[in-house]
Amino acid sequence: MSVTAARGFVASGVEAGIRRSGRDLALVRSIPRSVGAALWTTNRVLAAPVLVSKRHLESAEPQAVVVNAGVANAATGEEGIANATRTAEEAASCLGLEREEVVVLSTGVIGVPLPVERVLTGVREAAAVLAPDGGDAAASAILTTDRGAKQALATGDGFVVGGMAKGAGMIHPRLATMLAVVTTDYPLEPGEALSFLRPAVDESFNRISVDGECSTNDAVVLLANGASGVARNRARDTEFASALGVVCGALAREIVEDGEGATVLLEIQVSGAASEEEATAVAKRIATSPLVKTAAFGHDPNWGRVLAAAGSAPWNGGFARVEVNRMSVSFDGTPVFARGEPTGETPALGGAAVAIEIDLGLGEGAASYLASDLTYDYVRLNAEYTT
Amino acid sequence: MSVTAARGFVASGVEAGIRRSGRDLALVRSIPRSVGAALWTTNRVLAAPVLVSKRHLESAEPQAVVVNAGVANAATGEEGIANATRTAEEAASCLGLEREEVVVLSTGVIGVPLPVERVLTGVREAAAVLAPDGGDAAASAILTTDRGAKQALATGDGFVVGGMAKGAGMIHPRLATMLAVVTTDYPLEPGEALSFLRPAVDESFNRISVDGECSTNDAVVLLANGASGVARNRARDTEFASALGVVCGALAREIVEDGEGATVLLEIQVSGAASEEEATAVAKRIATSPLVKTAAFGHDPNWGRVLAAAGSAPWNGGFARVEVNRMSVSFDGTPVFARGEPTGETPALGGAAVAIEIDLGLGEGAASYLASDLTYDYVRLNAEYTT
Repeated sequence: MSVTAARGFVASGVEAGIRRSGRDLALVRSIPRSVGAALWTTNRVLAAPVLVSKRHLESAEPQAVVVNAGVANAATGEEGIANATRTAEEAASCLGLEREEVVVLSTGVIGVPLPVERVLTGVREAAAVLAPDGGDAAASAILTTDRGAKQALATGDGFVVGGMAKGAGMIHPRLATMLAVVTTDYPLEPGEALSFLRPAVDESFNRISVDGECSTNDAVVLLANGASGVARNRARDTEFASALGVVCGALAREIVEDGEGATVLLEIQVSGAASEEEATAVAKRIATSPLVKTAAFGHDPNWGRVLAAAGSAPWNGGFARVEVNRMSVSFDGTPVFARGEPTGETPALGGAAVAIEIDLGLGEGAASYLASDLTYDYVRLNAEYTT
Repeated sequence: MSVTAARGFVASGVEAGIRRSGRDLALVRSIPRSVGAALWTTNRVLAAPVLVSKRHLESAEPQAVVVNAGVANAATGEEGIANATRTAEEAASCLGLEREEVVVLSTGVIGVPLPVERVLTGVREAAAVLAPDGGDAAASAILTTDRGAKQALATGDGFVVGGMAKGAGMIHPRLATMLAVVTTDYPLEPGEALSFLRPAVDESFNRISVDGECSTNDAVVLLANGASGVARNRARDTEFASALGVVCGALAREIVEDGEGATVLLEIQVSGAASEEEATAVAKRIATSPLVKTAAFGHDPNWGRVLAAAGSAPWNGGFARVEVNRMSVSFDGTPVFARGEPTGETPALGGAAVAIEIDLGLGEGAASYLASDLTYDYVRLNAEYTT
């Protein structure tokens, strides 16, 4: 159930003193040569470790990942770039790798310099205690204000996919956010990992919303080392793709469930859109609507807000196509609005999750999204700190 | 300071019993023949009065506006269309107008049928008490949960522009939102009003955000009757455009200041963007960022969140262009981030307004936005009701 579940991976998590207390530096490494890929935040403001790691992956296959929590090393200028580079160099030196084979990730406060000497000392300590059962320690070392560690596992015919993530717990005034590291002993060719990682991320991490924010540091990294020894074939490739989807989906769901102040999970399903792109736009708009999210917090099957959000989903320079007379909405399976008319039904919503289904009645496009509700605690966590 | 400030306008506000208590139906009428225009919500889900009034204005110049509060007549199917049409017919009949010369606006709960008999009775009562000093009564009759009436006035060389608005006070479970009616005794030609109304609205109502939501009922209506008798010339046209801008701007600002749960007004100014369009995209993204808005509530000069929001402003299918090394940010005039580096300054923010200036350092594009903060009360107002 961790990044060391797959064969041939070792990990560790240590207390480097980057933040006040607890583990705050994780290291994951493949023992056999691995291949890999990463997907990064699309924010135009990129943290130093993102800039440095993207460059590394242009010329090398990743063999190890260093993650520090506490300081995001974002908006830190040239010094930040130098600090991220030194971190990768130190890890490479300890592990007998090239600098470019090391991915560095940071999460924590934006705009604060990385305490680089502590990080370098931490890297050396972490390298010294790498172990095949170090996954749990690594998973705990990447958290910031998450309520708990986030790990997931899926097994295929002779291979394993495991992963860890940290989520949207921005209780500090400037905190950069979501990281995930996924490892597998499935064999992939150099340059091939991205073709598996991208669809898995599109269907998982790209379909969740806590508050619609897009951080400077978000990253998902996949390492594949082939240590399972299984032979490739089309059926197994499909199975691997599924397993990767399961792990990414589980980690994404854990992130939403542990969203800041979250009390209710919104499972949004849009169908009948004129295109899949528009279905996604509508699902995302509903998932990020403050009015839908406060209604969910209040256990209110508020289809009026769902309609208003669906009607204003940014798409193609305008709004996604909807026609109110063709729209139907249900909450937890109870129809509340059917082809343009209220049904008069008012389902009681009391659970920790609510399923909101919207049929646009226009075509075949469908999409789903997971979101957390908008609560007092979200406001408290994000408002009550001053820099 | 009202819709009856300009010569030749009469108005009234009455208690029609559409909601539990208080005035809830307003009527505004021009005595001389007027011309006019309206701008409507761009939501794809349009309330019945919006659909009906848009059709009316295709074939006639507006002479009167009926506004009811309490029920939005949105998502009410064919019956909703019929009820909006009957409302316009009743007003036309009372005032000796064609049905198409009457604009009907509704604000209130979505998905509930308009109590049409009460509305028709209210229209007759309102028509009977129309008066040149009826502006205040009308302004109070269009409110829902606004803390107070919103009115504005500007005078030019021999003419007057006055207006009223209602804002984003969605404390009911499904409430549709922003309405404004602006009147002037400046002379405009038939078909010409929109060319003045559109830029004024673009710079005012389209530059505010309480929660980024776009309602099914939003409308701004302008009536111009020429009763001032002033002669047109280019200088006076410019003055009229300015006065219209002042009135729309003042009403827009009142709406944000009275936003749901609002305690701090964010005055966002973006400059140095590669284009004006991108400046607007960045300003809007910052104005709708939950993290920026909760930071404002906490009086936190949180430039990290401002940078992260600026870096993820939807534009042209991607994000607006920014380069962190060229960006500068100040809070209330104090630079906190200058061309890619933190300044180390931490201004104390304690007022009811905070000015956030962002210079992208790329070009000449500039834009401003007004926003409210995100507070406990916003969540309470929108969460604590169940249908």
